Amino acid sequence: MTIDIETRFRFRADNPTDVLLQFEAARVPEQTLDNLSTTMSDSPHIARVAAQDTIGERLWVRVEGEFDVHHTASATINRMLTELEPLDRLDLHDLPGEAVPYLFDSRYCAGDRFQSFVSSEFGNASGGAKVIAMRDWIADHFAYTPGSSTPTTTALDSFVERQGICRDYAHVMITFARAAGIPARFVSCYAPDVTPQDFHAVAEVFLADPSTPGGGAWYLVDATEMADPAEVVKIGVGRDAADVSFLTSFGPTEFLDKTVSVTRSG
Amino acid sequence: MTIDIETRFRFRADNPTDVLLQFEAARVPEQTLDNLSTTMSDSPHIARVAAQDTIGERLWVRVEGEFDVHHTASATINRMLTELEPLDRLDLHDLPGEAVPYLFDSRYCAGDRFQSFVSSEFGNASGGAKVIAMRDWIADHFAYTPGSSTPTTTALDSFVERQGICRDYAHVMITFARAAGIPARFVSCYAPDVTPQDFHAVAEVFLADPSTPGGGAWYLVDATEMADPAEVVKIGVGRDAADVSFLTSFGPTEFLDKTVSVTRSG
Amino acid sequence: MTIDIETRFRFRADNPTDVLLQFEAARVPEQTLDNLSTTMSDSPHIARVAAQDTIGERLWVRVEGEFDVHHTASATINRMLTELEPLDRLDLHDLPGEAVPYLFDSRYCAGDRFQSFVSSEFGNASGGAKVIAMRDWIADHFAYTPGSSTPTTTALDSFVERQGICRDYAHVMITFARAAGIPARFVSCYAPDVTPQDFHAVAEVFLADPSTPGGGAWYLVDATEMADPAEVVKIGVGRDAADVSFLTSFGPTEFLDKTVSVTRSG
Amino acid sequence: MTIDIETRFRFRADNPTDVLLQFEAARVPEQTLDNLSTTMSDSPHIARVAAQDTIGERLWVRVEGEFDVHHTASATINRMLTELEPLDRLDLHDLPGEAVPYLFDSRYCAGDRFQSFVSSEFGNASGGAKVIAMRDWIADHFAYTPGSSTPTTTALDSFVERQGICRDYAHVMITFARAAGIPARFVSCYAPDVTPQDFHAVAEVFLADPSTPGGGAWYLVDATEMADPAEVVKIGVGRDAADVSFLTSFGPTEFLDKTVSVTRSG
Repeated sequence: MTIDIETRFRFRADNPTDVLLQFEAARVPEQTLDNLSTTMSDSPHIARVAAQDTIGERLWVRVEGEFDVHHTASATINRMLTELEPLDRLDLHDLPGEAVPYLFDSRYCAGDRFQSFVSSEFGNASGGAKVIAMRDWIADHFAYTPGSSTPTTTALDSFVERQGICRDYAHVMITFARAAGIPARFVSCYAPDVTPQDFHAVAEVFLADPSTPGGGAWYLVDATEMADPAEVVKIGVGRDAADVSFLTSFGPTEFLDKTVSVTRSG
Repeated sequence: MTIDIETRFRFRADNPTDVLLQFEAARVPEQTLDNLSTTMSDSPHIARVAAQDTIGERLWVRVEGEFDVHHTASATINRMLTELEPLDRLDLHDLPGEAVPYLFDSRYCAGDRFQSFVSSEFGNASGGAKVIAMRDWIADHFAYTPGSSTPTTTALDSFVERQGICRDYAHVMITFARAAGIPARFVSCYAPDVTPQDFHAVAEVFLADPSTPGGGAWYLVDATEMADPAEVVKIGVGRDAADVSFLTSFGPTEFLDKTVSVTRSG
Repeated sequence: MTIDIETRFRFRADNPTDVLLQFEAARVPEQTLDNLSTTMSDSPHIARVAAQDTIGERLWVRVEGEFDVHHTASATINRMLTELEPLDRLDLHDLPGEAVPYLFDSRYCAGDRFQSFVSSEFGNASGGAKVIAMRDWIADHFAYTPGSSTPTTTALDSFVERQGICRDYAHVMITFARAAGIPARFVSCYAPDVTPQDFHAVAEVFLADPSTPGGGAWYLVDATEMADPAEVVKIGVGRDAADVSFLTSFGPTEFLDKTVSVTRSG
Repeated sequence: MTIDIETRFRFRADNPTDVLLQFEAARVPEQTLDNLSTTMSDSPHIARVAAQDTIGERLWVRVEGEFDVHHTASATINRMLTELEPLDRLDLHDLPGEAVPYLFDSRYCAGDRFQSFVSSEFGNASGGAKVIAMRDWIADHFAYTPGSSTPTTTALDSFVERQGICRDYAHVMITFARAAGIPARFVSCYAPDVTPQDFHAVAEVFLADPSTPGGGAWYLVDATEMADPAEVVKIGVGRDAADVSFLTSFGPTEFLDKTVSVTRSG
């Protein structure tokens, strides 16, 4: 399966402003990229730095006036695709150091407060089956409602209000997993069938890897049920949305417009 | 200067419980360790994993019944000690990838909401001078009040309530720095003169390194004014206290007692 | 049924401090009081003012040094006791002016954020049956856990954490009712069988009064299931716990001890 | 001075929905009303109930389809106008029962958390002078920024973010006053010179009334500095904005448009 991506967005700053961007399909073994192109307005400073867990890159740009971004890529997905249901949870003492931070509370995902709920609601299941139960619970109890949340909405807010968009679904999924001792991170991505078409966000949980005794791997989970792991093109990962915004501005900017197109090509 | 550390603590779990510990003086170039000893109760599972930014280690232990920990170390501090005041801020596009996540909002330190305050209160200063102004503002406006905060108190809470303990002072310092576009992280540590004697916490900010053109380095800042960077023995670092608790329990445990002794030895 | 109450508590203030107390059984038609006695330490200023909705009284005292309070009462309960299940909800436009404020969000009870949850979980029931469904849901999903909450815990916090004490159960009950358009208030009270014995708190909801066409009345509901409406001795009411604390201090005070005894006497 | 008011607004509900309105100039002794007219779309149910502290009225309407409201009034202001500066604070034990609830924390105004700040920032002043100091501090440190807050923004949020609109300024003013033991309430009103012209909100504090020994009175304070107490036409009062919204809908409604005109007429 190949996924074709094309995205354009524009914004402006009246005064010279540093902006951090992360919108490109990431070069990682699980997705092979072709036709990769990123075109941007001129900037006196552009710097690329490795993004979190070395998945993808962040771009620093210095912006004054209007700034246009145009990105295309064709991604062939090679990731391991497996049923989550039978996967074991790793014992905590078997978690590798790099998975441990994804157990901790982050800005939007504070798992500690959900331990009672998670234990009583999902206590009978374990590992992948527990993750599936969490995903289905969210899908059943939430309404996908564009405009119902803001950039500062937390998983706790969403849990109470029972609605949100992809970032909110991912935040709740991550929070539940952490409360159950399963490392979970936030994945910013492209996927077809996302309605309305836009950047997408899903969760990724760390469970046992059946092909590596004692080892673990990250598995995609989408509580919105809009994205199939076989078709997700990763942009980057983080503890939650605070880490992988497609645009973080360090000063006033005005966002002008954005189009995202994600299609299957064969 | 050599700093001698001795800490003991005990806790218990009625049922087998995974516990993550991080209490040991970290083996990092800036502090040379001697007389290092860690003795713990027996556990069916003990695992050591690298901690955040490879500073120090985390220990997983499986606990059932009472669990005792005893740790000693003598640390000679070699870190670069410099006046913060004249240090420049790095331009954002010159920040290395590993410093970037410390600009983002974390569980207890949401810099985004403090931009107006930080800009109006500290807008005239820059770089190290701005950091010093922030540190002094906190020292002037806060009362160090054991018992006034809880493990879920955020920097925003502390900013409103104007009191707290070392973690709260560090959280506010980190939050102000991030709001000004200066990466800042949380450092769990040992230091003499901390009253009452206990684990300590300070902030670390990323500013220009005068010895490396274009480069930056981390510098310790303690808004409680109890610890001198020349005498701080690092345990670990994180985005905030959520990342470097000395004890994180994944199930019910009862904390029994703790003693921390930190002295200068010549 | 007569309920005998005896309560004593002591606190101290090092400097002259105004303190507001509300601990006496309220003189209201629904409970006839005998053997009423309130003895307190001397104070340069004591003032009694009517409490909220003219249910009970608040006492202002000026305290310096130790202050002792001793209160006794025997209350015979005359309130209308009825099954809630068959009671109708009043149409909103039939609510009297004095019930309307109890629809609004208060410090600890913000009903607006729970509308989706309440509608999907309790949408099939109406009036008293809906209130009973809410009460049973809380009783089923919460663990009564002394020490799990603090004076600033909100209904939203409790809803997420699924535990608390009587004030938290009452706050969640009130919040759910308001989210369904049913006025609800907080009742501070005495009741036998409260374990551990202490001041108690329950909710009160405004539903149709079958004996008065078009009219409504307040009905007690206790989601902790520890108190029977036939045995509740009211102290006061408010929008939530912020309004009817037994002791509100306007300056530093140290609480020393408290005993509450509530028994049935024939 | 006479103030002429004219306001129109329209909203719609697809299904029959109860809506609570409070937009009319209140009939209270401090303002004499003329040319009073309220015209609304037909509704199967309209009920008027007394509003909080019997200041003004609330209207229940049952809405289906589009609903139009048109209100005019000419108000002559008779209220006591006095310099706040020299007014004394009432001792707490001299507060009448009806002022006491305005000391307590409400949904958007939790004074308890601001005691340290208020004591250190305004501790040297007392009574009316303290209120003026608070008002001036807010005016100096806040930016009036339409769109920067939402209906759920609290005084604590605004204090941190240092910006907001009239409701936010009033919330912070009320919160500061309560933290200093001065009862304070929220006043929804009309006033000329409000920019952009709209419903307005100010605070009201309870201080000594020099004309009544031992007595107190409510005094208007506007931290936005847009309204003069001599020209404020009250609509209603409450603990905070939760109590006196001009439109509270108990079901989905779509707001269509609103015009408010407030002019001086000689």
